[in-house]
Amino acid sequence: MPAVAPAPKTAPPAAVVAPAAAATKLTLATKALVEALARVERIIPKSSSHAGATLIAIDLAPGSVELGGTNLDLDVRARLDADVTGSGRYAMPAQVLAQVARALPGDDVTFEFGPEEVAVASGSFDTKIRLVAAENAPTLRFPTAFDGEIDGAALARALEHARYAAAVADYQAVFRAVRLELHPQRTRAIATDGFRLASHQSDADSGLDADLLIPARSVDELLKLLADGPAKLAISGAQLTVATGPYTLNLKLMEGAFPDYERVIPKAFPVEVAVDASALAQAVGRVAVMADKAGNHRVDLVVMDGRLQITSEGAFGRAEEELEVEQQGSDSRIALAYNARFLSEALAPIAGRVRLRFSGVTSPTVVDAPADPAYLAMVVPLRTG
Amino acid sequence: MPAVAPAPKTAPPAAVVAPAAAATKLTLATKALVEALARVERIIPKSSSHAGATLIAIDLAPGSVELGGTNLDLDVRARLDADVTGSGRYAMPAQVLAQVARALPGDDVTFEFGPEEVAVASGSFDTKIRLVAAENAPTLRFPTAFDGEIDGAALARALEHARYAAAVADYQAVFRAVRLELHPQRTRAIATDGFRLASHQSDADSGLDADLLIPARSVDELLKLLADGPAKLAISGAQLTVATGPYTLNLKLMEGAFPDYERVIPKAFPVEVAVDASALAQAVGRVAVMADKAGNHRVDLVVMDGRLQITSEGAFGRAEEELEVEQQGSDSRIALAYNARFLSEALAPIAGRVRLRFSGVTSPTVVDAPADPAYLAMVVPLRTG
Repeated sequence: MPAVAPAPKTAPPAAVVAPAAAATKLTLATKALVEALARVERIIPKSSSHAGATLIAIDLAPGSVELGGTNLDLDVRARLDADVTGSGRYAMPAQVLAQVARALPGDDVTFEFGPEEVAVASGSFDTKIRLVAAENAPTLRFPTAFDGEIDGAALARALEHARYAAAVADYQAVFRAVRLELHPQRTRAIATDGFRLASHQSDADSGLDADLLIPARSVDELLKLLADGPAKLAISGAQLTVATGPYTLNLKLMEGAFPDYERVIPKAFPVEVAVDASALAQAVGRVAVMADKAGNHRVDLVVMDGRLQITSEGAFGRAEEELEVEQQGSDSRIALAYNARFLSEALAPIAGRVRLRFSGVTSPTVVDAPADPAYLAMVVPLRTG
Repeated sequence: MPAVAPAPKTAPPAAVVAPAAAATKLTLATKALVEALARVERIIPKSSSHAGATLIAIDLAPGSVELGGTNLDLDVRARLDADVTGSGRYAMPAQVLAQVARALPGDDVTFEFGPEEVAVASGSFDTKIRLVAAENAPTLRFPTAFDGEIDGAALARALEHARYAAAVADYQAVFRAVRLELHPQRTRAIATDGFRLASHQSDADSGLDADLLIPARSVDELLKLLADGPAKLAISGAQLTVATGPYTLNLKLMEGAFPDYERVIPKAFPVEVAVDASALAQAVGRVAVMADKAGNHRVDLVVMDGRLQITSEGAFGRAEEELEVEQQGSDSRIALAYNARFLSEALAPIAGRVRLRFSGVTSPTVVDAPADPAYLAMVVPLRTG
């Protein structure tokens, strides 16, 4: 066993007294901070095997503060006007900062940054939060120039109408994405999980010309941030950046071949019906109470003589409703089965009358609204018997 | 192997054609049904190894229908006015009936009972639900005569003020109960988990003279049903029955010795402070953001010179607030630690000023309101150092 080294007899050199630097200070409105943190915090993981992943980075510059984080698929940054003395980059767990911010009693809050902790004062509230070395926080790179611009509400409308049809899990990656087509005078969003499809096309112009595959979960976060007013766009490599209001998002794009959906949209429809979309959606919802949730949630539709009969049968019994519809094409009876949830979700975006166009009992049914040609959905009937 | 008996050559005697019996029919307002089912359904287990436990019993009599179920600790029955043809007892899974009822489109609903299924019609909705043999449903016995009566709101007030202090799990049974003391001119509810206690006493008179131990979870269900107006009471064996509005509940009582709480309420208080209850509760809530949730959720209180300092320190930092208080008794400094949640819950029922009476750093602190002597809470400080 090595001998224990004797303690040095000389004391360490006395620290040089540094000139008192002006403290780095940040003051801003509590409400604006809480609102921005609510948006940023939900993207940053609450726990991770890599501790840095849970951090929020706080970048101070004259007149503003930037709060940034990432979930690897998505980087987010909020820039807020603030009264700042000094500058620098700091980090702490995003959840801790958000929790403290929600508890602040005052209209304003002041953060005074020391080397190891930050003092937070608001009204009578006085808290010290430990800081984490800023180099542990992920380094996020946001573009400084943008190539395109689109109305935020128009982009949101397209993505919202398509997003529901993306698959949730356990499917090929492209089925868990929303395809965004940005072309001159044409903006289109499409998603499909192979059993249904939803698409929304408008003449909104982004100034870009590109087809993108955005993970559906990143679309969900983008939808929470998009608002009226311009959204600036930049594409670089496998990343789309959207700047909307105080927020900037980098969305990692997916690679892969999206299904040739134009080819699968049927062209001929032996039977077509039109009916009030909300009356149909409500009837499907009621009848589906009896469908077996564990299985394919089956409801049966029969069209005959201007009437649409909706039935469902499960372990506990059978439900039935009938609606009058405006029928076109063949007068012959057509009977199909659907996943009730898929049918309800296809109907949900439609106000007023919906048109159901049946191409056959095993080929897709097209769901659209005569009054709004922007939206088109398809649902593949269940195989029966 | 025994030989298979030859099939009898003669056909069985033809069934005597019975005179067509009038169908058993029930018609009532959808809203009243949905409301009653929401109350009854939540008590009945959603799944059970004993299938009968998930059933709701439907008892039809001229002019009314009774819906009944149980979770073994608690039987519940709702009696609703209804238009009834015929009579009888039927059963089906409570969840199925509740789900169907919530989906009904019409103002009224008609049930037509067959031997194996019931047809449910409301507006355009037409459903058949399978029935379960009624003998599989639990047999519930409710008393027909009552011994006492109390104002429902007064009973609710007592139980609500005490219930939060009961233990949730993993404790002696008596700590998971609310003790209800019904005596002439005195109604009192008390609960304790050994670390805190809450009690509410009023001069409400029930006409009864008994001390009861009600499981806290049954108290929660009772509190959802109690309303203004008289609640009739009956005690028989180890069961309290409460009839309130359309509902009747049998609450199974617990046995066991409740702690001698009168003995543990301190009599001497070296230091006392008074302060606005909601200002204190909010400060404790804010400071506790920094407390370690996984541990004992510790906040520290220091009283000195008419000021109350509240601090908390956890893995992420330290929070501090200070309030001016009206201090009585010793001027000397007193420092105590509490579970922040226990302190917040003790304060919650108090409007206006609260009095904190400190008996010592390891003995219970009494929390009450000078303006409302009915309510008294105790919190035992955490052991520190």
